[in-house]
Amino acid sequence: MSKPLILVSNDDGITARGIRVLVKVMQRLGEVVVVAPDGPQSGTGHAITIGNTLRLTEEEIFENVVAYKSSGTPADCVKLAKFHVFKDRKPDLVVSGINHGSNTSISVLYSGTMSAAIEAAIEGYPAIGFSLCDFDAKADFSHTEEYVYNIAKQVLENGMPKGVALNVNLPPKRNEKIRGMKICRQARAKWQEEFDERYDPNGRRYFWLAGNFVNFDKGEDNDEWAIANNYVSIVPCQFDLTAHFAIPKLNEGWDWEKLEK
Amino acid sequence: MSKPLILVSNDDGITARGIRVLVKVMQRLGEVVVVAPDGPQSGTGHAITIGNTLRLTEEEIFENVVAYKSSGTPADCVKLAKFHVFKDRKPDLVVSGINHGSNTSISVLYSGTMSAAIEAAIEGYPAIGFSLCDFDAKADFSHTEEYVYNIAKQVLENGMPKGVALNVNLPPKRNEKIRGMKICRQARAKWQEEFDERYDPNGRRYFWLAGNFVNFDKGEDNDEWAIANNYVSIVPCQFDLTAHFAIPKLNEGWDWEKLEK
Repeated sequence: MSKPLILVSNDDGITARGIRVLVKVMQRLGEVVVVAPDGPQSGTGHAITIGNTLRLTEEEIFENVVAYKSSGTPADCVKLAKFHVFKDRKPDLVVSGINHGSNTSISVLYSGTMSAAIEAAIEGYPAIGFSLCDFDAKADFSHTEEYVYNIAKQVLENGMPKGVALNVNLPPKRNEKIRGMKICRQARAKWQEEFDERYDPNGRRYFWLAGNFVNFDKGEDNDEWAIANNYVSIVPCQFDLTAHFAIPKLNEGWDWEKLEK
Repeated sequence: MSKPLILVSNDDGITARGIRVLVKVMQRLGEVVVVAPDGPQSGTGHAITIGNTLRLTEEEIFENVVAYKSSGTPADCVKLAKFHVFKDRKPDLVVSGINHGSNTSISVLYSGTMSAAIEAAIEGYPAIGFSLCDFDAKADFSHTEEYVYNIAKQVLENGMPKGVALNVNLPPKRNEKIRGMKICRQARAKWQEEFDERYDPNGRRYFWLAGNFVNFDKGEDNDEWAIANNYVSIVPCQFDLTAHFAIPKLNEGWDWEKLEK
């Protein structure tokens, strides 16, 4: 049997420490191909490049790994990999990360890391986004490697439910060892933005986005709880955004007669 | 009672025809404030601006309407509106669009229009994204205005289910009148990408994203069906991406003993 084909992408860019760790771990599981952004794209969400051109350049940056950098977003990278790099082959697994920083709770929406995984899921590829809950560019990933390996191996062996990508968050390095893994739901929380207002040397105003994370969720089955308690959190994510519960409410609650006039 | 406060944003930029139509219709319902990108941002998804500065400039572009343009994304615009423009006031409604082009089915993920609405829903504001299924920058919106008005009015009067924003797609102008409205689910479909490969004057390769929309969905309760049959489609969308159905599957199907080692 041939080795599994594994696509690696990320949103911190092809030179980030996190992607190097991910490539190293995935090489234990299969043939690795990298297609990743040529620079940092944090907070890019599920953006794609429309109305602008895309570059794709082969790079000899990882040992024994075919790698391309792209001017595009993480979602673009998955599309380019499918169309240009793999052509008739299909990846057995797509992994994204390891992100430098948490993608728990509502951050999944803003996450470029997860957009690569979700784009892959749309294509029907088993897919996982990995994030380390530590924003340091020089963060220590060593305590997470066996978890990353085991989760990827499970997905290669067991596949994934249809229409689902995994959002895996890994606790930062702490004195205590990681306590295990939890399948979680996305915590109910949000960012409470504050903008830092400044003036440039020409006297024109600009803002920096800043803010605090506010967790409303008292449950113990969510990703925020898992990370706070030193577990690896695994949230299955879907790209069907339909709020099915709201369909009967809207059909009943709205005054259709008035609307149809 | 004071007039409802309505925030208008979009992703085609503050000078697009679609936002002018939306502002005009919303002025019949309340006090309108515009915060919109200073240029086109199609396909920007739920991107936010991290690691870069944001501009926000008041513009006298609409009659009797306070308006700001921003260098940021649609999601940034909602955050800036909350933090800088409204401060202690809360909008009664946030509307985004009217987008020049469809945001049905999977396009909701890539949509900057919907990201403004979803960002507003995260803040707890009733929110609607409107899109006309016609990509022409000079598209005719006249047949949609009463629908846009009525849907916004219903939301102002009845509120919205918690954690939900509406994704409203409007059929293009056809010979036949719009047949009515349908509360729908997101169709199962995807973009089949093709990249147009070219070379620049320096001989370096670049790509244009192109592709065809492929609809797998045979149902009559989805947004693609509604638009094809000349109905306005209304999909309630949520920002909890958890695939709840997959949680028991993962808990049962995975070999936890092996994983915990």
